[in-house]
Amino acid sequence: MKIAVFGTGMVGQALAGRLAELGHQVTVGTRDVAATLARTEPDGMGNPPYPQWATAHPEVSLTTFAAAVAGAELVVNATSGGVSLDALTAAGAENLAGKVLVDIANPLDFSQGFPPSLFVKDTDSLGERIQAAFPGLKVVKALNTLTAELMVNPKALAGGQHTVFVAGDDAGAKRTVTELLESFGHTDIIDLGDITGARGTEMLLPVWLRLMGTLNTPMFQFKIVR
Amino acid sequence: MKIAVFGTGMVGQALAGRLAELGHQVTVGTRDVAATLARTEPDGMGNPPYPQWATAHPEVSLTTFAAAVAGAELVVNATSGGVSLDALTAAGAENLAGKVLVDIANPLDFSQGFPPSLFVKDTDSLGERIQAAFPGLKVVKALNTLTAELMVNPKALAGGQHTVFVAGDDAGAKRTVTELLESFGHTDIIDLGDITGARGTEMLLPVWLRLMGTLNTPMFQFKIVR
Repeated sequence: MKIAVFGTGMVGQALAGRLAELGHQVTVGTRDVAATLARTEPDGMGNPPYPQWATAHPEVSLTTFAAAVAGAELVVNATSGGVSLDALTAAGAENLAGKVLVDIANPLDFSQGFPPSLFVKDTDSLGERIQAAFPGLKVVKALNTLTAELMVNPKALAGGQHTVFVAGDDAGAKRTVTELLESFGHTDIIDLGDITGARGTEMLLPVWLRLMGTLNTPMFQFKIVR
Repeated sequence: MKIAVFGTGMVGQALAGRLAELGHQVTVGTRDVAATLARTEPDGMGNPPYPQWATAHPEVSLTTFAAAVAGAELVVNATSGGVSLDALTAAGAENLAGKVLVDIANPLDFSQGFPPSLFVKDTDSLGERIQAAFPGLKVVKALNTLTAELMVNPKALAGGQHTVFVAGDDAGAKRTVTELLESFGHTDIIDLGDITGARGTEMLLPVWLRLMGTLNTPMFQFKIVR
């Protein structure tokens, strides 16, 4: 499948790398290609800058959001939640129409430091805002509840015995995303219904962040025991 | 231990019954004893009215919030989140001083129907509001993330292989509550730190409620796989 990945940070790198490894034709989209390629420092979390990652992944190309989307069947939103709408606007609503968007972003607001608060929550969600702003997109909220490494390689923890969620208005888009998650190794994928299901998964972030501090690692996962 | 349970609904009944079964001396507190004893109809969830439950549990007495607290070492807040502060106020700050409060309540607002929203969240929590309003209480947020039956009998699901949380400012109070949870059968109890940890567990409610609808049962649980 031809896939555009928006975002050049840890999540974008993990998704782009794994999708390419699985044989997909992957293009990464960024706001300013020259600025992304000029980065030489690790990000705030100690992840390598994009150019270093790109050298190890020559099969993945880098371009603008709009160019990345051209011809793509599926788009992965791995940007920071605060800039997701801007990135999609830059891609162009007309270029996005009819496409599946896997929305991994969380509405984290770091303006007051750590832990971040959520800039949308409870009676609305980032997933819903994206769907409302781009009605032609088929938004599927997914993979926003676990660390990047486990998103794409769930079997690295407990043989993959843990849970991920999908939520979205389009049943066909959810099937496509579910198959993609299965190709990563996910075996327990719960369909939370329409895009308003994003509220609950985005609101998992506060306990997720607290657990990361308590457990001193991001390598943990929610499992819904039933 | 002498324990006061605030709340006569499903959660209060489950806690009071299990604590009495384990040999504790349990008194249930309510706002209006006569009104509680006059109930003849099941609640909105189909649970039996308190008098029917009380007939089967003659060892558990019913009295006012203030009288229930007298002599109790530990108080369980199993009231609705919207009336928790009122119930504690009725009990009297001077009667509560120095006691451990297990706060099971969630800040659910049903005024706009189902699903409820949260009347406090993200940068504050009901647990914190209770701690701030009653500084003499040792508030431990716990058991607010699972259905009543599993709170007190975790082994009824998957042999108890799932997770509960404690959060609170007083280490000794958390030890007391942890031992109580262990006596119920909980084996995986994560200490989320101070009472601000209540934010994350209260914000689990939206996905919990969504999952209850999706799975068509409240008999499921979070497990933190690590």
